[in-house]
Amino acid sequence: MSLEPDLEVPRGVPAVRHRVVKVREHGASECLDHLAVEEPLEIRLGGVSLTVTMRTPGDDEELVAGFLFSEGIIAGAEDLDVIARYRGPDGDPDDGNVMNVLLKGDLRVAKDRLRRNFVASSSCGLCGKATIDAIRTALPPVRSDLVISIDRLNRLGAAMHEAQSTFEKTGGLHAAGLFDADGRMIVLREDIGRHNAVDKIIGHRVLARAVPLDRQVLMVSGRVSFEIMQKALTAGIPVIAAVSAPSSLAVQMALAADMTLIGFARNGGFNLYSGAHRVAPSVTELV
Amino acid sequence: MSLEPDLEVPRGVPAVRHRVVKVREHGASECLDHLAVEEPLEIRLGGVSLTVTMRTPGDDEELVAGFLFSEGIIAGAEDLDVIARYRGPDGDPDDGNVMNVLLKGDLRVAKDRLRRNFVASSSCGLCGKATIDAIRTALPPVRSDLVISIDRLNRLGAAMHEAQSTFEKTGGLHAAGLFDADGRMIVLREDIGRHNAVDKIIGHRVLARAVPLDRQVLMVSGRVSFEIMQKALTAGIPVIAAVSAPSSLAVQMALAADMTLIGFARNGGFNLYSGAHRVAPSVTELV
Repeated sequence: MSLEPDLEVPRGVPAVRHRVVKVREHGASECLDHLAVEEPLEIRLGGVSLTVTMRTPGDDEELVAGFLFSEGIIAGAEDLDVIARYRGPDGDPDDGNVMNVLLKGDLRVAKDRLRRNFVASSSCGLCGKATIDAIRTALPPVRSDLVISIDRLNRLGAAMHEAQSTFEKTGGLHAAGLFDADGRMIVLREDIGRHNAVDKIIGHRVLARAVPLDRQVLMVSGRVSFEIMQKALTAGIPVIAAVSAPSSLAVQMALAADMTLIGFARNGGFNLYSGAHRVAPSVTELV
Repeated sequence: MSLEPDLEVPRGVPAVRHRVVKVREHGASECLDHLAVEEPLEIRLGGVSLTVTMRTPGDDEELVAGFLFSEGIIAGAEDLDVIARYRGPDGDPDDGNVMNVLLKGDLRVAKDRLRRNFVASSSCGLCGKATIDAIRTALPPVRSDLVISIDRLNRLGAAMHEAQSTFEKTGGLHAAGLFDADGRMIVLREDIGRHNAVDKIIGHRVLARAVPLDRQVLMVSGRVSFEIMQKALTAGIPVIAAVSAPSSLAVQMALAADMTLIGFARNGGFNLYSGAHRVAPSVTELV
């Protein structure tokens, strides 16, 4: 046998199959493996290229809406006129990897918002502390009296894992899930990029005109970095739980914005890094 | 007890300790947890900001050299004049998160190179196939008659894991290791961003004037995406092994550039996605 010389990826699918050779201790075998699809998505604003992100196809409209919201370009669905897949001159949607957005109102307002948000992003540079200070100025802390029980927090991971589809087949996708205070899943999204999965979730709620998400819990597979926390803060999410570790900047941001940050949420336990007042019964009294 | 209200991150450290509450089935306890440090690094070219990347402090000079090389801005150490940490007007290195680069020769040449490379990057957009085609035009396939044995490939993962330090303490860092054909580790780097760990490795070899890396194997923790493959191809690395899954675009790129791509390299086995001719004994005959 021999490996395939090429890999065709049909338009819009989240996973493909590819023949691989499995090498194990006692020999090798040929099998079909699932691969998570990674394709670029170009977001255009009024026909002008804004950004390109490597993403897993699917829910592109949500991804665009979530990205524009996270970046501060739109304040909600009311600022959106149209999100449409770009079609070439002959009406063909090309490879389906370009989305064009038309906004209601003045584009200059959007550009001003983008510039202001830029200050609150990592690009303000210099140091994490300066970044946090800039965010503290640009974005108010989350305001939410949400309280969630340890039992419910402990069940989020299993609920998300159960709902995951492609992830288990490929081992190649990140997942993010949004839950209500009773632990019910509102929406789950998977993507090769963790930030895209979160943007798709936020976009889903933006398009449903359901932001801010101040009564919800965001759960992500893997780690939590600054970028995820910034998106969550923009959407007003008070509780963020991750299967793996948070970064120092994620913890700094949670402390500064009064967000409840949970890491290592697995195997019926978790680590709490900030915002203990939203967890019941009081873990600080349990200690 | 209560959680700490703030988290101070000393300049330049890769990990910090932070007090957390561990919630387990039968109660809660307080403990010190290690956090991977995430801080922005701004790279300036002749004093002008080029990019900001979120990274784990350490080996910043290598990160800068590797980034400039991967992006096609420099062809080697001979193009570098100085990489220096920016010091403010009063000579203070600020927060240590700004690096300034002076190039030898004409800056316009570097800018031309950046523009040309841009075509070969994800930003050319539209679709994975177009991206691969653009890369095929801009970058030749790897040329290397390197052959590595299954036994040696199977030992890379353990060797890398043994050499990792911060990763095990925090669970929050990605690792990348460069090995020679005999399976000896040349350099290991860890970072909150997988692409940064790879840039640090490539930068290490650029500064040692040891590129191209056409007799070496790159191993990464976690997944392999397009971005990692592009960096490896620019450095001429013929064999890439990952602990977890590759994306569709990573496999497409490996096939197009004749790179050997290995995934799920763990527990004494691996999956081979392309470039079987560099693995001995022949796995395609074993099947």
